[in-house]
Amino acid sequence: MSEASHPFDQAIALVPQGDGEFLGHTHPGYANFIGPYGGITAAQTLNAVLLHPQRLGEPVAFTVNFAAALADGPFTAKARPARTNRSTQHWIIELLQNGEVVATGTALTAVRRETWSGHEAVMPEVPRPLDVPRTPRKGVEWLHRYDMRFLEGMVPRKWEGQGADESVTRLWVRDEPLRPLDFASLAALADNFFPRIWLRRATQTPIGTVTMTVYFHADSAVLAQTGTSFLLLQAKGQGFRNGYFDHTGQLWNEAGELLATTTQVVYYKE
Amino acid sequence: MSEASHPFDQAIALVPQGDGEFLGHTHPGYANFIGPYGGITAAQTLNAVLLHPQRLGEPVAFTVNFAAALADGPFTAKARPARTNRSTQHWIIELLQNGEVVATGTALTAVRRETWSGHEAVMPEVPRPLDVPRTPRKGVEWLHRYDMRFLEGMVPRKWEGQGADESVTRLWVRDEPLRPLDFASLAALADNFFPRIWLRRATQTPIGTVTMTVYFHADSAVLAQTGTSFLLLQAKGQGFRNGYFDHTGQLWNEAGELLATTTQVVYYKE
Repeated sequence: MSEASHPFDQAIALVPQGDGEFLGHTHPGYANFIGPYGGITAAQTLNAVLLHPQRLGEPVAFTVNFAAALADGPFTAKARPARTNRSTQHWIIELLQNGEVVATGTALTAVRRETWSGHEAVMPEVPRPLDVPRTPRKGVEWLHRYDMRFLEGMVPRKWEGQGADESVTRLWVRDEPLRPLDFASLAALADNFFPRIWLRRATQTPIGTVTMTVYFHADSAVLAQTGTSFLLLQAKGQGFRNGYFDHTGQLWNEAGELLATTTQVVYYKE
Repeated sequence: MSEASHPFDQAIALVPQGDGEFLGHTHPGYANFIGPYGGITAAQTLNAVLLHPQRLGEPVAFTVNFAAALADGPFTAKARPARTNRSTQHWIIELLQNGEVVATGTALTAVRRETWSGHEAVMPEVPRPLDVPRTPRKGVEWLHRYDMRFLEGMVPRKWEGQGADESVTRLWVRDEPLRPLDFASLAALADNFFPRIWLRRATQTPIGTVTMTVYFHADSAVLAQTGTSFLLLQAKGQGFRNGYFDHTGQLWNEAGELLATTTQVVYYKE
């Protein structure tokens, strides 16, 4: 990996050790409050499948479970094709540090055929990204790896416990610096949302994503067409109960194509 | 397992073989077109975690991947606690037939604490279940294991290719015969929806669910309160592209409590 490479490529770089094992390393550019940004862990997990010599087709579904906060340093990624069919393949993935599992995952890759297509989750009508000012976001390092332009549902300005009934957030996002979109960066973008519980409560309760699922509707051709342009991200909470909430989300490109949908469960302390 | 036991309990019964391995068997009462109803496979997969002697807490999130159609007959379920923390535990599960993987899964179980709670996915206003006639459904055997009362988005009556723009389905469902709700049956109910592509296209293209995720908002106390009453199930498609679509869904009890949310990806032929 050259000095000039993009921080995202540096972060998801995995060195093959043979037999589906890879050696990776956390990256300071994607540091979060405790451990790395979950989106980068997701991308590293998926990349073990993407780089696997036996991979068949492209990602269709991907679930990553954040089992523990990663420590700064190296990790091992193990990807195993549990079942290979004619056009589909099912993967089990584990990330380990010091012999302990820190993330698990499953993925479905598939060779797609052209069929009837017709998205139902239509992109909302919103201003174009360059007509919206970049939202200044301070704090943890990974926020600086994205150009975010919030349209709705920004992090509360006042933490006074006066939350909203609804937790919809809409924002334009792209990598900073620019980088052409691929499956790994799309998986990372799916974790870009700040926790819905903060919107609902306007109280900065400690949180941590415990699982995220991403369904890919785009194939590599659509991702290549999307290139370095902005994605519209939307998320909305569903259930909030006794320490865990979930949200559903959608990611469109500027042309309004639905690239991916996502859900996640987030732990919250109180 | 006694002759008198409920078909669902017969179907999800697993005989411990030690070291997280269980022996199960497909059940003719839950047969689908090819292989068993995916919901029963999901319940069998989750049950390997529920019955595991090292389990900590109750299910919060569960993903099952349908890697191959199960053949009628025995299967082995393997559940492994990949990571156990103070209050959470991450599981990897595999179902095998003749040494080949037929399903994979991950689950998160957790000991929950009482916190602020406030569901955002509110149950729509619909008639009470007993005011709605039972919907006659013919065909595969598993349909007879549920009392379904469709409110909206029924399977098309005419297969003439005149589909709908939206694929919303709402129905009341409970086990038939009655059985008190638990985590396994809730997971099974999450797969109760007929494929959204049929609503969109009014064409009976061959389909198969390839992955399903269920997030549990209810704990065992809420499930016990719900008992044998009806659940309101709702689903809506999101993306349909080149052979795969996804939907999001919600499951409420009659009191309007959000018990679970779910997503799945379904393969379709054309």
